[in-house]
Amino acid sequence: MSFAPLQIDPAVLAEGVNLMWVLVVTFLIFFMHAGFAMLEAGQVRSKNVANQLTKNLLTWSVGVVMFFLIGSGISSLVGGSGFASAALVGSSGDWVGWLFGAVFAMTAATIVSGAVAGRAKLRAYVTYTILLAAVIYPVVTGLTWGGGFIASLGYQDFAGGMIVHGMGGIAGLTAAWVLGPRIGRYNKDGSVNVIPGHSLTFAVLGTLILAFGWYGFNVGTAATVFAVEDGALTLGAFSYVGRVAMTTTIAMACGAIGASAVSLIKTGKVDTLYVANGLLAGLVGITAIPDTTTWWGAFVVGGIAGAQLPIVFGFVEKRLKIDDVCAVFPVHGSAGVIGTLLFPFVATSSALEGTTMVGAFIDQVVFVVIVAGWTIAATALVFGVLKAIGQARVTPEHERDGLDISEHGVDTYPEFGVDDGVATDGGS
Amino acid sequence: MSFAPLQIDPAVLAEGVNLMWVLVVTFLIFFMHAGFAMLEAGQVRSKNVANQLTKNLLTWSVGVVMFFLIGSGISSLVGGSGFASAALVGSSGDWVGWLFGAVFAMTAATIVSGAVAGRAKLRAYVTYTILLAAVIYPVVTGLTWGGGFIASLGYQDFAGGMIVHGMGGIAGLTAAWVLGPRIGRYNKDGSVNVIPGHSLTFAVLGTLILAFGWYGFNVGTAATVFAVEDGALTLGAFSYVGRVAMTTTIAMACGAIGASAVSLIKTGKVDTLYVANGLLAGLVGITAIPDTTTWWGAFVVGGIAGAQLPIVFGFVEKRLKIDDVCAVFPVHGSAGVIGTLLFPFVATSSALEGTTMVGAFIDQVVFVVIVAGWTIAATALVFGVLKAIGQARVTPEHERDGLDISEHGVDTYPEFGVDDGVATDGGS
Amino acid sequence: MSFAPLQIDPAVLAEGVNLMWVLVVTFLIFFMHAGFAMLEAGQVRSKNVANQLTKNLLTWSVGVVMFFLIGSGISSLVGGSGFASAALVGSSGDWVGWLFGAVFAMTAATIVSGAVAGRAKLRAYVTYTILLAAVIYPVVTGLTWGGGFIASLGYQDFAGGMIVHGMGGIAGLTAAWVLGPRIGRYNKDGSVNVIPGHSLTFAVLGTLILAFGWYGFNVGTAATVFAVEDGALTLGAFSYVGRVAMTTTIAMACGAIGASAVSLIKTGKVDTLYVANGLLAGLVGITAIPDTTTWWGAFVVGGIAGAQLPIVFGFVEKRLKIDDVCAVFPVHGSAGVIGTLLFPFVATSSALEGTTMVGAFIDQVVFVVIVAGWTIAATALVFGVLKAIGQARVTPEHERDGLDISEHGVDTYPEFGVDDGVATDGGS
Repeated sequence: MSFAPLQIDPAVLAEGVNLMWVLVVTFLIFFMHAGFAMLEAGQVRSKNVANQLTKNLLTWSVGVVMFFLIGSGISSLVGGSGFASAALVGSSGDWVGWLFGAVFAMTAATIVSGAVAGRAKLRAYVTYTILLAAVIYPVVTGLTWGGGFIASLGYQDFAGGMIVHGMGGIAGLTAAWVLGPRIGRYNKDGSVNVIPGHSLTFAVLGTLILAFGWYGFNVGTAATVFAVEDGALTLGAFSYVGRVAMTTTIAMACGAIGASAVSLIKTGKVDTLYVANGLLAGLVGITAIPDTTTWWGAFVVGGIAGAQLPIVFGFVEKRLKIDDVCAVFPVHGSAGVIGTLLFPFVATSSALEGTTMVGAFIDQVVFVVIVAGWTIAATALVFGVLKAIGQARVTPEHERDGLDISEHGVDTYPEFGVDDGVATDGGS
Repeated sequence: MSFAPLQIDPAVLAEGVNLMWVLVVTFLIFFMHAGFAMLEAGQVRSKNVANQLTKNLLTWSVGVVMFFLIGSGISSLVGGSGFASAALVGSSGDWVGWLFGAVFAMTAATIVSGAVAGRAKLRAYVTYTILLAAVIYPVVTGLTWGGGFIASLGYQDFAGGMIVHGMGGIAGLTAAWVLGPRIGRYNKDGSVNVIPGHSLTFAVLGTLILAFGWYGFNVGTAATVFAVEDGALTLGAFSYVGRVAMTTTIAMACGAIGASAVSLIKTGKVDTLYVANGLLAGLVGITAIPDTTTWWGAFVVGGIAGAQLPIVFGFVEKRLKIDDVCAVFPVHGSAGVIGTLLFPFVATSSALEGTTMVGAFIDQVVFVVIVAGWTIAATALVFGVLKAIGQARVTPEHERDGLDISEHGVDTYPEFGVDDGVATDGGS
Repeated sequence: MSFAPLQIDPAVLAEGVNLMWVLVVTFLIFFMHAGFAMLEAGQVRSKNVANQLTKNLLTWSVGVVMFFLIGSGISSLVGGSGFASAALVGSSGDWVGWLFGAVFAMTAATIVSGAVAGRAKLRAYVTYTILLAAVIYPVVTGLTWGGGFIASLGYQDFAGGMIVHGMGGIAGLTAAWVLGPRIGRYNKDGSVNVIPGHSLTFAVLGTLILAFGWYGFNVGTAATVFAVEDGALTLGAFSYVGRVAMTTTIAMACGAIGASAVSLIKTGKVDTLYVANGLLAGLVGITAIPDTTTWWGAFVVGGIAGAQLPIVFGFVEKRLKIDDVCAVFPVHGSAGVIGTLLFPFVATSSALEGTTMVGAFIDQVVFVVIVAGWTIAATALVFGVLKAIGQARVTPEHERDGLDISEHGVDTYPEFGVDDGVATDGGS
């Protein structure tokens, strides 16, 4: 009696299907750059739009190259596996993994650009991006997902609520603080001038592109459709992927509702930008814990993350007097920290097995403090040095004229706004 | 002689792969909200853009929460399976199914916002959205996909040509009729003023985002890549997925061509907005029947759905004198009804097995009449009550000033259009 | 002793999973039309935006129908398999394959619209699109991917760096040359006037949408997740998919960096549009060879493709005096040719097995010359005939007024720019 050779190796099957899923979600996460570009462009003055767009394009381009050559190696080094840069490892599967990591890294990087809008020099921003992609962010992932020190203590951050968003939001706030506010943002008596962005439509478009990509970010972090256990094919992370998708959706919705409610209470109106940013804050809030949170916990986390947005935004603006142009701290920073810290209070019972609510909370606090401390220190150092050598901010004249002209030599909307009298083709 | 344990259970394999496919298309369908937001924003005056954007954000946010807590339960209740709300069911797979249903529900909901633009109160719109997501739409799905009364009679609606789009378009027309037209839309002599939207670019962007998401909507409704029959793995809906993809594509194209042709005949020019909305009408037209239609049938359905658009739009505007701002009835309502009713005349022979052309047509007419009747009655009731208590429309002053200021306290484009004289940061 | 029947046929498994992957990437590639629409709309004057948008909508709609009825058959005919039009073949799987081919074809078609912006008659453009989709492009694919003459000689073009992008860019340049420049583009003394596009924001949005879709374009061309060899399931193209994803990413990044560097050297500033178009040129550059290029080769190809952009753009504008409005030749044409020709110099050693560097280079040159020659001849013939019968360009009056009014009867931004004094609803 003879048998046919093994026809389907479960490992091959799992590898192919998992690769497909990871590639698809990686593309979705990449698309978040379009979201950030539109969200940020919409929130700045028309004279600074091209600068914001250029920063977004270069964040991805410069950042991904640095992360390929150096950052991926630093992450593995800090994680204890030696300097395994993606340029040195050579397999097809490794490169998919690298790209999957890269789109998370570039998300952290691009958050900062929204905070420093309207006055940072392009070269200062690019310098910081290089260092963030090569060192600052990789140290954080090395310590955590890479298996380093924080991992040895224990922590929970499924898709980067703290590692990516909290880190990016805190870095943005730090950079904005070192740079100082835009001219005209504060009066001599300390009172605040609102400088509205030039297009709510682009801002909301960016919001919805981000939400779309976020499904890749959170649900995609359930990266294994299949696993192989004892030689048999099983569902891997897909055994709980529905919870991730559900909590992500509910928290997003409750973020928008929470911010709307606070806006309505504070001003009697539903501010569109608060709704949009609240929706994003809800997403940030759940990002650390979508796999472990109960359905009612998603309402709590999303609602709080959204509701805190107008309040923290006002605190940063009026108390700290930091000019965080695109509200990246309330959206990414405080929402990320809050969601990370809420873990033990909204988790399913099985997620807390082997620990206690207090123990888990302490782990989260330690994790947040280390990541925040490192991020603040590294960011303040880089921008502090740039400031000390006079390379952090454009000149006041350039800032008044707008960074589009001074840094890029372009006019984003040459036919609109203040008429520049130029029409070279015989018409409007 | 011993055997290794079963290595690959076909049921596990099918579950993982099907989950992946459903998640991917669910994300695509979610992204249609960005499409609706841009399409509608582009078709309204600049003073009402933020209002339109806010309604889109809140449709999703409020609607999905209501559908989670109540709507999903109402649907299963009407379908005869008891009140199985997604908050009560608890498995990962159930939540994927819920989210897949939710993105269809929210599509129906958001269609209405385009019809009532420029004069509905935000609280009126949100109230209607709550009721639509919790009751009105779930009753329709319970009667049909959920296995209720209409299902027992027999009907054909693959991806919601009638259930989602026809229902949404009819609801929008009803709401616009109850609300009455925008100030200035009609003169005292009954003649019509055209109120052009503020940006064709955003409208076309929205169109193309919607077409992208529609591939998820239609092709994704072929939701089972694999099935298990007699213990063996087979292609599920993917045995005919190519037909769905092909007819969807051809009908989309012929919708644009049909609308272009009628526009050219009527005015001598190819109106951009008719081309865009014609493309969408072609998609709506095929949505009930992409799995059963012949290739030439896709040309017929798409062509008719596109060609009827300018004609029905004119009829609604000039005869019915209903101010359907974003043309949601000709795009979603009449196109959805027409496509649904064309089923027996363009179907493949196998799709009509066990019935006759006349029998199938009668089934479709009954289906359309019940869904339309319920939708008109429920929508007229809700907006009628809101109107009776003076909560349906903003005041004439607010309408003239624009809903952005009155309802949201924002200016969508503070640097463009009519100069508001505000420039707080020392430049343009 | 009895055995259960075969539970999982590897061929069924591979078919289902491969179909899913091809459908997903097809949707992504389709979405590139939104990218082209935005990129091109942003780069034209506000008086020509609706014309550009309409051309994009009709390129897809008219083109896909022609490719369904005729083009797919011409391709197979030229490839030696007889006239197998998608309307004649009838299986579900065939139609997925047709749609996958169609989205590549429509990409080639739509590139041309950017070159002829602002003066081509709509009917001229649509006529050309019909011929491109039915004959011109299918001849190219028949000769190559379809197994025709060039395939018999040997060549390398993985995802259409030459077949799609090179062809489209060369066609665009040819069409722009035959049409002549826009009024006012050149002065009598031969000096050049810059006519800036109306919105950098839309242009960058389009760039990022294109980059998103490009992952489908390149990585998706690794179309077989699984293959079946000797009855056993193996990874198909997914055995090297990571290289495709990595080289695509690195070349994209280096394209942006290369164009930025040249822009900075030439003008002292980083021109936003060069960065965006450089990113795209990097993608075009790698598209022929993402599966065979070393990691350092991706840096080389992307960097060169980006760096040549400002230089070739200047050459076309100032030396050739061709008014290629959206820079489609430097982005798609020269970048595509360069990347195709660089194949042997950056390839992995295994990719050159069985040939020599010189032999492979000669193959590429012959391939490029044949495709370019055919494209130039066919395009010049079509636009030459249209010009001879006075149907190629709009009248000078219409060009001055803008094509939106003259060809489409619409105003893209009725509330912005030059005030048209119309406000029918009592407000701004």
